[in-house]
Amino acid sequence: MPERTAIGVDVGGTFTKLALVGSQGRLLERAQMPTAPEAGPADFVRRVGALVDAFKGRAGARAIGLGLAGDVDSRRGCLRFTPNLPGWEGFDFKKAFSRKMKRPVVVENDANAAVWGAYVTELKRRPRNVIGVTLGTGVGGGLILEGRLYRGSTGSAGEIGHALVEPGGELCHCGARGCLEAYAGNYGIVRTARRLLKKDPRRGALLRRLCPDLDALDPKTLTLAAERGDAVAREVWRLTGRRLGIGLANLVLVLNPDVLLLLGGVSRAGRWLLDPVRRSLSDQPFQTSFKAASVRMAGNHDGGCVGAALLALDGPGSR
Amino acid sequence: MPERTAIGVDVGGTFTKLALVGSQGRLLERAQMPTAPEAGPADFVRRVGALVDAFKGRAGARAIGLGLAGDVDSRRGCLRFTPNLPGWEGFDFKKAFSRKMKRPVVVENDANAAVWGAYVTELKRRPRNVIGVTLGTGVGGGLILEGRLYRGSTGSAGEIGHALVEPGGELCHCGARGCLEAYAGNYGIVRTARRLLKKDPRRGALLRRLCPDLDALDPKTLTLAAERGDAVAREVWRLTGRRLGIGLANLVLVLNPDVLLLLGGVSRAGRWLLDPVRRSLSDQPFQTSFKAASVRMAGNHDGGCVGAALLALDGPGSR
Repeated sequence: MPERTAIGVDVGGTFTKLALVGSQGRLLERAQMPTAPEAGPADFVRRVGALVDAFKGRAGARAIGLGLAGDVDSRRGCLRFTPNLPGWEGFDFKKAFSRKMKRPVVVENDANAAVWGAYVTELKRRPRNVIGVTLGTGVGGGLILEGRLYRGSTGSAGEIGHALVEPGGELCHCGARGCLEAYAGNYGIVRTARRLLKKDPRRGALLRRLCPDLDALDPKTLTLAAERGDAVAREVWRLTGRRLGIGLANLVLVLNPDVLLLLGGVSRAGRWLLDPVRRSLSDQPFQTSFKAASVRMAGNHDGGCVGAALLALDGPGSR
Repeated sequence: MPERTAIGVDVGGTFTKLALVGSQGRLLERAQMPTAPEAGPADFVRRVGALVDAFKGRAGARAIGLGLAGDVDSRRGCLRFTPNLPGWEGFDFKKAFSRKMKRPVVVENDANAAVWGAYVTELKRRPRNVIGVTLGTGVGGGLILEGRLYRGSTGSAGEIGHALVEPGGELCHCGARGCLEAYAGNYGIVRTARRLLKKDPRRGALLRRLCPDLDALDPKTLTLAAERGDAVAREVWRLTGRRLGIGLANLVLVLNPDVLLLLGGVSRAGRWLLDPVRRSLSDQPFQTSFKAASVRMAGNHDGGCVGAALLALDGPGSR
């Protein structure tokens, strides 16, 4: 019997990744293209179709899963609100893709898809309750509760990045102040670094040498600088980890999970980020929940495609 | 056929309430006694047994449900940690009650039981996802997700009161700073009132007349003073509601519920508390989740017994 497969599409504001995925989450074929939001969603569907046509194993794919950045209405198969794909709101992706591809289509929030993908492929023992946090330009999240993807009442659950961690704090891309994303999103991390460099340029001399143009500063460079001993870069990760720890601690108190799973580019910062996060979590009066929750980093950076494909193939899990 | 009934016991630090409860949550008989934690859990079991013996309909009760204040291990039927019932940790309530009463025993956290009771008896349409917040000396919570009581991995979920709403803020009974409870628990509310009165005694003249002894100040008096137009009392509820709103907003972003249900004595403050809470929630950039969530107050102050009995009778719900 041939392996059951599906196509997964992970749609970000800049790039879209596609993959043909097996039933256990194995990546069989992959492709990537610019999302080009300005060309509109209909053109996007056409271009995805062309790339899928280039997959050797496309004929066997039973379904298509789409992970979209924004507030997704899974039932209607469209975006309600999306800062990163302007003008795509309300477009019926379910209808457009099912017409084009003649297969069932599942439309999901991209962070939910990525967390589901990491859950299936990286947490082999399938713990019952997992909080996934996607760290990138934005900060998102996905919740696996009782072994199922939890979507909430309108499919909008998991907006971890916009939980308040500092009333009246830093400005967030969403327009509010003090959101977790304003500290742990890429732009927040870089803002912290620029501020520390301005205050004490000599402490960050190594970082300045690695990245003379501060406009080009990114988390990757900060990780490199931290590894080489730069005091400012280490301080940036310490401050970022502390804020992230506050946000995660609140989630642990409320949801009492088995695993906190960090995904995305920033998670590459490794122990520079993880150590202060773990310190925040161990320094808590209510110990039962914190002892039960382990912090893990997901290594698979194709989790978004894989999760979207698996959701299309198997649904959101089972008890 | 006689109605299916169970006995519910709601164990607080000061008082214990008992009830014989019908399958739809109807209260058939009730009793109350001092908890007297210092007399120990074995004596407590004996006294509960004596009160149950006084119930006319006791013979028909099929099960016993117990709601305990603290971190409850439902599987083992004991408390892991409890600030309000010192020395009761580790005592096997399941064994003690099932020996004494010859019936199945369910042991649950008291806030979980209270939220489940309010859910069944007050939200007739049984919305799928409900966040319940118990407002009293402490601030606790219970989560109904997908129509079931969500307990988390060790049964410790719902500790909403110890989520951080103000880093480095007011001292909480748990020992940490800036927890929601430090602002929205009875002692936090009274602390806010005393501080405002000290700063500007004349603004709170009416409140002072209602309560000349500031050591006796409580939320009930603050509600009365607010209704009569006292500026300090209204300011206290405004500040309390804003903090509570921050905590609730974070939960809405993460869990995208249908209903936020406020339970307990403080919820009697009515619109003085609810208006600022609702303002906090409407003033949010991510509107889908906030539009979907309505804020309600539970009127039934026997929810704790009722919920414990229903959990013993029917289990934690179903999809």
